[in-house]
Amino acid sequence: MRTLIRGGTVVTAGGAVRSDVLVVGERIAAVADGLDLPAERVIDAAGRYVLPGGVDVHTHMGLESAGTVASDDFATGTAAAAWGGTTTIVDYAGHDHGEPLRQGLQRWMARAEGRACIDYGFHLMVREVDDRVLGEMDALVDEGVTSFKLFMAYPGVYMVDDAAIFRVLDRATGNGALTVLHAENGGLIDLLVARNLARGRTAPLWHGLSRPASLEGEATARAIALAEVAGAPVHIAHLSAAPALEAVHRARERGVAASAETCPQYLYLSLDDLDRPGFEGAKYVCSPPLRPRRHQHALWEGLRVGDLQVVATDHCPFNFHGQKELGRGSFARIPNGLPGVEERVTLLFQGVLRGRIGLERFVDLVATAPAKLFGLYPRKGTIAPGSDADIVVFDPGVERTLQAATHHMNVDYSCYEGMRVRGAPELVMQRGQVLVEGGGFKGRPGAGRFLPRSRPAAPSP
Amino acid sequence: MRTLIRGGTVVTAGGAVRSDVLVVGERIAAVADGLDLPAERVIDAAGRYVLPGGVDVHTHMGLESAGTVASDDFATGTAAAAWGGTTTIVDYAGHDHGEPLRQGLQRWMARAEGRACIDYGFHLMVREVDDRVLGEMDALVDEGVTSFKLFMAYPGVYMVDDAAIFRVLDRATGNGALTVLHAENGGLIDLLVARNLARGRTAPLWHGLSRPASLEGEATARAIALAEVAGAPVHIAHLSAAPALEAVHRARERGVAASAETCPQYLYLSLDDLDRPGFEGAKYVCSPPLRPRRHQHALWEGLRVGDLQVVATDHCPFNFHGQKELGRGSFARIPNGLPGVEERVTLLFQGVLRGRIGLERFVDLVATAPAKLFGLYPRKGTIAPGSDADIVVFDPGVERTLQAATHHMNVDYSCYEGMRVRGAPELVMQRGQVLVEGGGFKGRPGAGRFLPRSRPAAPSP
Amino acid sequence: MRTLIRGGTVVTAGGAVRSDVLVVGERIAAVADGLDLPAERVIDAAGRYVLPGGVDVHTHMGLESAGTVASDDFATGTAAAAWGGTTTIVDYAGHDHGEPLRQGLQRWMARAEGRACIDYGFHLMVREVDDRVLGEMDALVDEGVTSFKLFMAYPGVYMVDDAAIFRVLDRATGNGALTVLHAENGGLIDLLVARNLARGRTAPLWHGLSRPASLEGEATARAIALAEVAGAPVHIAHLSAAPALEAVHRARERGVAASAETCPQYLYLSLDDLDRPGFEGAKYVCSPPLRPRRHQHALWEGLRVGDLQVVATDHCPFNFHGQKELGRGSFARIPNGLPGVEERVTLLFQGVLRGRIGLERFVDLVATAPAKLFGLYPRKGTIAPGSDADIVVFDPGVERTLQAATHHMNVDYSCYEGMRVRGAPELVMQRGQVLVEGGGFKGRPGAGRFLPRSRPAAPSP
Amino acid sequence: MRTLIRGGTVVTAGGAVRSDVLVVGERIAAVADGLDLPAERVIDAAGRYVLPGGVDVHTHMGLESAGTVASDDFATGTAAAAWGGTTTIVDYAGHDHGEPLRQGLQRWMARAEGRACIDYGFHLMVREVDDRVLGEMDALVDEGVTSFKLFMAYPGVYMVDDAAIFRVLDRATGNGALTVLHAENGGLIDLLVARNLARGRTAPLWHGLSRPASLEGEATARAIALAEVAGAPVHIAHLSAAPALEAVHRARERGVAASAETCPQYLYLSLDDLDRPGFEGAKYVCSPPLRPRRHQHALWEGLRVGDLQVVATDHCPFNFHGQKELGRGSFARIPNGLPGVEERVTLLFQGVLRGRIGLERFVDLVATAPAKLFGLYPRKGTIAPGSDADIVVFDPGVERTLQAATHHMNVDYSCYEGMRVRGAPELVMQRGQVLVEGGGFKGRPGAGRFLPRSRPAAPSP
Repeated sequence: MRTLIRGGTVVTAGGAVRSDVLVVGERIAAVADGLDLPAERVIDAAGRYVLPGGVDVHTHMGLESAGTVASDDFATGTAAAAWGGTTTIVDYAGHDHGEPLRQGLQRWMARAEGRACIDYGFHLMVREVDDRVLGEMDALVDEGVTSFKLFMAYPGVYMVDDAAIFRVLDRATGNGALTVLHAENGGLIDLLVARNLARGRTAPLWHGLSRPASLEGEATARAIALAEVAGAPVHIAHLSAAPALEAVHRARERGVAASAETCPQYLYLSLDDLDRPGFEGAKYVCSPPLRPRRHQHALWEGLRVGDLQVVATDHCPFNFHGQKELGRGSFARIPNGLPGVEERVTLLFQGVLRGRIGLERFVDLVATAPAKLFGLYPRKGTIAPGSDADIVVFDPGVERTLQAATHHMNVDYSCYEGMRVRGAPELVMQRGQVLVEGGGFKGRPGAGRFLPRSRPAAPSP
Repeated sequence: MRTLIRGGTVVTAGGAVRSDVLVVGERIAAVADGLDLPAERVIDAAGRYVLPGGVDVHTHMGLESAGTVASDDFATGTAAAAWGGTTTIVDYAGHDHGEPLRQGLQRWMARAEGRACIDYGFHLMVREVDDRVLGEMDALVDEGVTSFKLFMAYPGVYMVDDAAIFRVLDRATGNGALTVLHAENGGLIDLLVARNLARGRTAPLWHGLSRPASLEGEATARAIALAEVAGAPVHIAHLSAAPALEAVHRARERGVAASAETCPQYLYLSLDDLDRPGFEGAKYVCSPPLRPRRHQHALWEGLRVGDLQVVATDHCPFNFHGQKELGRGSFARIPNGLPGVEERVTLLFQGVLRGRIGLERFVDLVATAPAKLFGLYPRKGTIAPGSDADIVVFDPGVERTLQAATHHMNVDYSCYEGMRVRGAPELVMQRGQVLVEGGGFKGRPGAGRFLPRSRPAAPSP
Repeated sequence: MRTLIRGGTVVTAGGAVRSDVLVVGERIAAVADGLDLPAERVIDAAGRYVLPGGVDVHTHMGLESAGTVASDDFATGTAAAAWGGTTTIVDYAGHDHGEPLRQGLQRWMARAEGRACIDYGFHLMVREVDDRVLGEMDALVDEGVTSFKLFMAYPGVYMVDDAAIFRVLDRATGNGALTVLHAENGGLIDLLVARNLARGRTAPLWHGLSRPASLEGEATARAIALAEVAGAPVHIAHLSAAPALEAVHRARERGVAASAETCPQYLYLSLDDLDRPGFEGAKYVCSPPLRPRRHQHALWEGLRVGDLQVVATDHCPFNFHGQKELGRGSFARIPNGLPGVEERVTLLFQGVLRGRIGLERFVDLVATAPAKLFGLYPRKGTIAPGSDADIVVFDPGVERTLQAATHHMNVDYSCYEGMRVRGAPELVMQRGQVLVEGGGFKGRPGAGRFLPRSRPAAPSP
Repeated sequence: MRTLIRGGTVVTAGGAVRSDVLVVGERIAAVADGLDLPAERVIDAAGRYVLPGGVDVHTHMGLESAGTVASDDFATGTAAAAWGGTTTIVDYAGHDHGEPLRQGLQRWMARAEGRACIDYGFHLMVREVDDRVLGEMDALVDEGVTSFKLFMAYPGVYMVDDAAIFRVLDRATGNGALTVLHAENGGLIDLLVARNLARGRTAPLWHGLSRPASLEGEATARAIALAEVAGAPVHIAHLSAAPALEAVHRARERGVAASAETCPQYLYLSLDDLDRPGFEGAKYVCSPPLRPRRHQHALWEGLRVGDLQVVATDHCPFNFHGQKELGRGSFARIPNGLPGVEERVTLLFQGVLRGRIGLERFVDLVATAPAKLFGLYPRKGTIAPGSDADIVVFDPGVERTLQAATHHMNVDYSCYEGMRVRGAPELVMQRGQVLVEGGGFKGRPGAGRFLPRSRPAAPSP
């Protein structure tokens, strides 16, 4: 089966050129211009951007949290991702205390298998570190799970101490894994949470005020110092605040292999949303929390100059009714997480329209850089011969309104309800199969495949 | 005529992938993998890098200076460029005081026509600014000369005052040109030169000591301030020193459209070379001068993080015998300029081998970014369908020694005499025609064409 | 004659301690506590601060400018200074083109002699630099005129080129003088002024908009670079803008002997004042111009951390009626300058009350540091045995309103009309003689003496 | 009893002036010039500096550590301090786990009473934080113990967690105490120590290599973030490394009330000393450890610009023979600490001679600033009427050699053995009593008094 996507502007992280793209089977066979390439199907992309399928390296499909379960599972969540132009996710698998990592991974594998509409990989969230766990990591890296997340927050649940983080970083210098950090000072946050609740401060706003930006900055600087001592790379997940960005900037200036991702919610939403009247603020509870508006400017700057390399979503939706409402009496019982997997590509594209980032940088942030950083490149994240034919034909001109009534995520509200945006995926293809076209969903649960990932490595001939 | 370059690793600024490249006529027709593309000629590139032809945006072929003439003319200089993997140059045309810009340009056009072995564009060096000159600029931009260089140094020869610089920048907000600055404080430098000569300090080293780094930093900051007031982009030519880089860094941090280029000589040579015994130092006289070694580290960092976007050569060779020797009695009479057009690509590639920059960044610095910045992209600077088939098959493994005995530039010494390097262009092609292959030169004077350049612009669908 | 100031809190740059101060004749004889020191006169200072008399190192008494003359001469201006707690000024003497420096100085000497109510020294504003002028400088330094001001603005009037500035700085490494710069890029400003006038932009606001902050930043960085090359100290007069402060900060970080002064107008007034309705904005025309409000915060920070060492006034008042009005048709004809010599000490004290600076830092900024920097210490600027008995008994509690109706400067408006302030000089003494007391002026024209100043020097045993 | 110190140059943090100082009883009664003040005793200080007695705010007299006891007790240590020009110490009292703070304080009080030759105050080292301890702190502040030290290092011995640190900082916003931090990441250091020992790396050098500078930087940034969240001031003890200084610098830039001290050993000694042949390196084991030499330059800069406000000693000597030797088999058993209380004033004075800091800054660093920061000013730390007559007549010209053979500390080696220095205390007086004079010690154990300290506070009239 040969498909020709003809006449569009192919945008990669390296440039934008008018080209045809020939897909043969599951792969891109050629990027060409002026050749008469025969094909069974021809897609007209004139006046459209032809983009690599988006790569969202931070999702939590069906995560159990705060006594409930994230409302999108691998079926609904990956369908919504496809609608939004994302064709690959890297989800966070976990394990219980005492449970082998592999066993946790297998549970996540089982959830995704036969359910996922798009391709997926896994990171592992690690709750405890000992010699056995370190040994398991070595094995898992060989099998394509090449990144591990550790938490500096959530004492008693996920948090590990600095020595544990260092041991993982140190091990990574041997096994080649990338260590990802949730960087907030959990010990102090728990104290502030308890204190605020004791003073009757139970509204959603206090979720934000109990997790000050300087504690994210501190933890980020600490994570980086540990990586520096170990001589290992480190990735900061969901960076939300200027002090944390400053720590990453300084580290990179002095040559530390530090990378970081932010999320659309930190670029478009703010502490003001947590303070919405009624209990509306609960819709905006996630961790790290939304920050005062001035941080948004710093984050866009970080995207522009390269201190932030990745935009992911931390997609972890909970319905307002019945789920977010669990925290009516106490912000500490509001399930943490926002929906977002569907809107990521479009929201970042608004940054192009507003002149904050260039078109190539946009593609880099939503597809290429995350693929490279997490060992999926060049299979994913670019439009090049040999790469998987994960392609988005993106119409930059269409205008629409983001809203829960029309989105495809399984959640009863939108963080961006009523926001006018320009640009939309018109056709989305994975490995040559059309997932979305003509306003209809052509994908199916189970079509997505597990992606063993490589260690991050320098390209060679 | 169809040529297939098969099995190499195609490296662009956006990534490195194993692909075939199909050339049809003068253009790249396809980048493909696994397709059986028929071709009259097949080039085996297995184990090689397939790179876009280098773009050197700063040369001075046959420039008259200090009573003599640069030893490479358009024929010899462009042949040497091709040997080194560079297939496009943008040379600096000039005009005399009182002479219309166009007339100067025509003289340069005449020098290049029928002589150049590779494609070429022109910037214009402007010696005076008045309403007539500004009007000429508008017209020349329309004709493809889209950048103008002004000098903050060489009073009485090239130097213009700040108001003149501002007028050009201000005009550029309308005509879309890019303003390039030679940023050194000429007034003060002339005073220091005179003072040092008066004290009997005539040796080549004093060339460097009469042009301190802080005066380049000052002028760079000044040029940027003028651009900031005008709201126009500005490009700093041949940036050599940490204080100048710092000025560019700060400007970019606050959103000013400032770009900068450095040259291989500032990355590999230093003030120590100016102080070589005998009159050897004269071989290293250029302006801005070679700096103390610590500046090299700052420049590499600037390349890595993106504060420096371009590596050009400022190629302007003079023979040691008979030319550099003119300054035996006074460093001020040594013709300013170094040979370098042939070694640029290879020298930057050493930075990849030493871990200073990535492979993609290397391609960006020597080809893609200069093409974009100076309005040649996507015709030049990348490997993409529709682009000119300017291609270098680069063998990363070959070892050789840089030396005057074997280089192809028309000059009697090498700045890098005896330096061991790895990697060499194996085959160089322009618009589908092979220029260098199998250690032989297949190009010819006159094959190169004049390139009218676009205004720098954002890509669109 | 012995006077005892008893029971106050003596504040110096080094600390605040409850002490008595004994004045014998013109000098402070002792700072003491618990001693029974006999005295003809006892002044009760309980609950008061006892401060060194203020030192204002930037005034222009009776300056001719824009075809008119500053409205305060040495008699009225120094009386107003005394009312405000300032007992020493260093005024800017000038010379005409072609006129020897000494002759200019003598004219200024003649103006002050028999007129000044307080002690005074002179800087010299130098309009041209040649060997003769440099020689004169050496001689004048020996006679106590130890600082020279050069202008990077006002082409054709005061402006000198970079080489001239360098020659003065270089000479200063021998004669020990301090070089003061008016740091604005005059060439470009004149162009912007002409352009704005040509476009009919004649209102006072355009005075400010024709002198952008980045051109002060540029010139400041340039002045510092010249000083760095010369190895000489440099002082930036009337620093008004964040980019200039940044340049000073970076210079000091890398060890350059750069100092800077700001003025109360830059701390309390802003571009908004230049935009007052009617022609009111003319009252606020000075150069550098008032800046957007955000610069104020940066300047207070500069005072706090020590990047700014001195607060002076640039006092140069013109009446609104008949003088400022000269510019009704064109902002370029508005005489440049503001009244301020009287309010300086009080305005800075508000910074103490608002927590921006400490009490000791306040004294340092208005008295000690300027005295040290300009060679008057320890004779002026502190309360210590042997120092001149220039003393202000300052009541921190009194509240009052700044207004033209009650101020003592010879000018028909106040820049701070209606502003409520706390704190006022209650008694002002110079060399043991009371100048102001009980709301009455006891000084007299001619009582002030010329102060030959030392070269700035490190203290020694 | 009246003593007149005549003809010296009195140096305070605010300036240096030739003055006489009259001491009546225990206090300074007057600083005077040209007065004929009658006195029973007259001390000729012509050609000498008259300095306030030094204030060393970091000592550990007789501390139990690593199974042994610091070799200087309150008698020998304070005598040595006086020999060196220091007349006040603030020693670190401690408590055991479970022991009330007050009880610990009383043990330290008992050690000092009847033994100390100079005045002394106490900080308290706190090992655990709960409501009882916080309540005790409130009471102790009222009694003059106004600073508490917490440890981020030494897990299981002194280390407390971040929440505990925050609780103390938070409490300090109410009780006015100053929180002092030992800022090193103890958890990670213990891991590195164990790992290095396991690999047979037992030599003293490995003490330094197990405590990398980035872990001090991390902990310093963390301490400051906690203080920022609490809105409380914080003091970093014995800052040794550039990254920690950077954290303090940035904090101060953004307005956090962060202060820091360094010690002479970090200014003059380096990691090279830890690597001395044989077991000599053990003499240089302290924590934080000596750093690579390049950190010294950063620290001197920090002193110059004010990011470091205090120089203290962390005096905690152990004899090489019998004490340091305990660690022959393992650097982890070497008692931590260096002798230094005697040399501090002289070593800092070398910084004046070498042009690194000014004379006034020297006095500020060794006497005034520590007195202010720790609530002893103006009783201690300056020469002013009403202050305690703690005075050092310092001869700047005398040359001598630092060596164990002639020092007065009770320890068998000197860190500075053989170092040539200029300047020495000639006469040292406390509260009007001569302690050192004519090369002889006139003090006596028990003459020193406990100093209840104030909360740090702004001066008022």
